[in-house]
Formats: sequence, structure tokens, C-alpha cells
Amino acid sequence: MEIKVLKDILSANEQLAQRNQQLLDSKGVFAVNLMSSPGAGKTSLILETIKRLKGKTKIGVIEGDISSSLDAETIGKEGVPVLQINTGGECHLDANMTSNALSNMPLQDIELLLIENVGNLVCPAEFALGEHRKVLISSMPEGDDKPFKYPLMFHEADAVLINKIDLLPYLKFDTETFSQAIKGINQKVAIFQISCATGQGVEQWVSWLLTQMSQRQS
Amino acid sequence: MEIKVLKDILSANEQLAQRNQQLLDSKGVFAVNLMSSPGAGKTSLILETIKRLKGKTKIGVIEGDISSSLDAETIGKEGVPVLQINTGGECHLDANMTSNALSNMPLQDIELLLIENVGNLVCPAEFALGEHRKVLISSMPEGDDKPFKYPLMFHEADAVLINKIDLLPYLKFDTETFSQAIKGINQKVAIFQISCATGQGVEQWVSWLLTQMSQRQS
Repeated sequence: MEIKVLKDILSANEQLAQRNQQLLDSKGVFAVNLMSSPGAGKTSLILETIKRLKGKTKIGVIEGDISSSLDAETIGKEGVPVLQINTGGECHLDANMTSNALSNMPLQDIELLLIENVGNLVCPAEFALGEHRKVLISSMPEGDDKPFKYPLMFHEADAVLINKIDLLPYLKFDTETFSQAIKGINQKVAIFQISCATGQGVEQWVSWLLTQMSQRQS
Repeated sequence: MEIKVLKDILSANEQLAQRNQQLLDSKGVFAVNLMSSPGAGKTSLILETIKRLKGKTKIGVIEGDISSSLDAETIGKEGVPVLQINTGGECHLDANMTSNALSNMPLQDIELLLIENVGNLVCPAEFALGEHRKVLISSMPEGDDKPFKYPLMFHEADAVLINKIDLLPYLKFDTETFSQAIKGINQKVAIFQISCATGQGVEQWVSWLLTQMSQRQS
């Protein structure tokens, strides 16, 4: 009985997510669902991405948080359209919240929509929002065993960004072990090592992102 | 309708949690529910705590993970009773899982039971297990804004351990801002700065823990 209820929720979410994607496609918006543990660097990555694409690609941002609008305020200073969703306790965004957010965004002025999910390595992996790509940020201080412990999230990701590589000298983290563990779960994933603090590797991520956008449009 | 179902789940969990605590009390076991984001240092803290209490307090450990038994294997090497719960997708432990685990633990040989929850700053805060204290580990690389974003978890905690303070020189983290934010949510919480990598501050945590145990028993 419980399983049936969950199935219904997921399929309702799936339907709404498809409708969101149709809306985005009709407006020529490419959407990315950014997921990670709390504090892995989603907001920093959005800021770095905006910085590099300013004047090249029109970006919009949806910020998902349980409470507060700290991140939306930070991103708003960059002069891009930003909308804060407060989930009020919910541990992930879903397609319905995203649908409401989309109807309040100036989609005609956006080519790339970055959606920052709630910081959580578990639940967001189960809920499609209508995004074209799922991107997981996994920061080095979290340790190289995370793919074994949160396999669904690593399985769902189109790209994994290993963030905070500037801290590597001070950590026990085996990049090779980590990458192999990810590949064991998800063979097609793109993996990038980046530091939003120093900017290292961010260019490669942005280049991958632009390629994904152009492939989608063609 | 949905809210009603959730209430029923929570109250069933609450009842089971109380039964777990009665069982623990009858066996003289003090239980601590350790919660944090993925990779904040729960397992490392358990290892450091075992090291310092060896020969003084009989410890048992319950490990909660979505999948894998990596942490249980690591802790098993310390020669303490350890049991792995794999939640199989669930994003938090609950009182029922804990009840099953307790019936498979040698409670008569345990004075202090450390329960490592699933790495998640959201959902575990809502589910009592029967623990006597809730302890939150918040690691410095996650950033000093976490209390604003995950207020329930910080509200529920009896103690917050700020871990990985050895990384402070390489991070933007304002300890004062962070502590004040926590106190704004939770005035009675104990706050400790620790490093499981260097051992700094762990003695104070262990001392607090022993005080809590003795207060409970008296």
C-alpha cells in the first residue's frame, strides 16, 4: 500500500517534470539541476559560471533552500534573474515547486537556467524537475567513499564536479579511487576536478556545459 | 490528508522511540544519535571516541547507511560490537530500524551506544530513535551559513561539534558568526570545536559525553 502511494507521487512528479521540460524547450531554455551535500559549493559554482558566461549566455537561477534567501541575495547581486524557493522543511525540490518557479521567471530572457537543489545527497536524486542535465558537486573534504554510500545520486548524474581541490594537500582523498568508484556506478558520467576558490578547472566545466547546450539545440 | 498520514507516521515513530529508550534504560545503556552532512566526520568521531574511552566505558555502535558496510568494517576493527543498518534508499534512520538493531546488539555488554545516522542534514532531525542525546557534527568546509539553511537540525541538537578545524587556515569560515547563528536557534546547545584529524578538542567532547552519561544515571 505504502509502495503504491510512493509510485503515484513519483509518476505525478514525472508527468509534471515532462511538462516543465516542454515549457523550457518551447522557450529555448536549457536547464541544469545542481545537487550536492550541504556546503559542497553549489552557490559558488553558480557564481563562477555566471562570471565566465556574462555577455555570452543569458543565465537565470532558481535557488532551493529549506529556509532563508541568503543564496538568492548573493546571486541577485550578479544582475541575473533569480528566484528563491523555500521548501519549508521538504528535503528536495520537486517538479511542482519548479513549475511554480518557472511561471514566475522571465523565461524569454533566459538561455541557461541553473537550479540549485536543497543540499542533500539522497532525496533530490529521486525527483526530476524537468531539467536537461543533472550535475552533482562532490567536495573533497566529504571523502572519497561517497559513491559507495550514496549510489543513486552518483548513478543519476550526467556530470560530477569534484570541488575544493585546493584543499587536497590537507586531506586524505584518493582521486583515482573516487573516479573509479563513480565509473563503476555510472559509465557515461563526465568528471571534472574544480576549485571555486581558485577557479581551477571551472573553464572545462563551463566548456562542457556549453557543449551540452549546443547539442540539445541542434 | 497527506498531513494526517505524516502525523500518524511520526507518532508511531515517537511511540517506538520511547519503547527503545525504555529498553536502553532497563539495560543501563546511554544512546547518542550522531547526525551530519555526508562526510562531516561521524565515523572519524566514533573512532576517536572509542580510542579515548577504551577500558573506561563499554561502547557499542550502530552504523546507518543507505548502502555499503564500509564504516561498520572500519569500526569493527576496534573490537567493539557494531551493527550495520542499510536503509536501502531511506534517507534517515527511524525508531523501527533502531528497534531491530537493538534486538541484535549485546546490550548487556554496552554502556554507551553511538548511533551513526545517514549523512543528511534534513530528514534525520525529524525522527527520534530512542536516543538520550542528539549530536550534530558540522564540518568547517561546509561553511558558516548552515544554521540558517538547516535550522531544524541545529534546533534539535544537544551538542554541535564543529569538525575539521585543522582546515580553518584554508577556508573562509567565521567561527563567531557560526556559533551566534546556532545560539539564535538553540540557546541550550553545547558547542565544541574539534579536529578528528589532529585530535584537537576531542577530549572536551568526550568529557561532555561522560558528564551527560553520569547525569542520566544519577
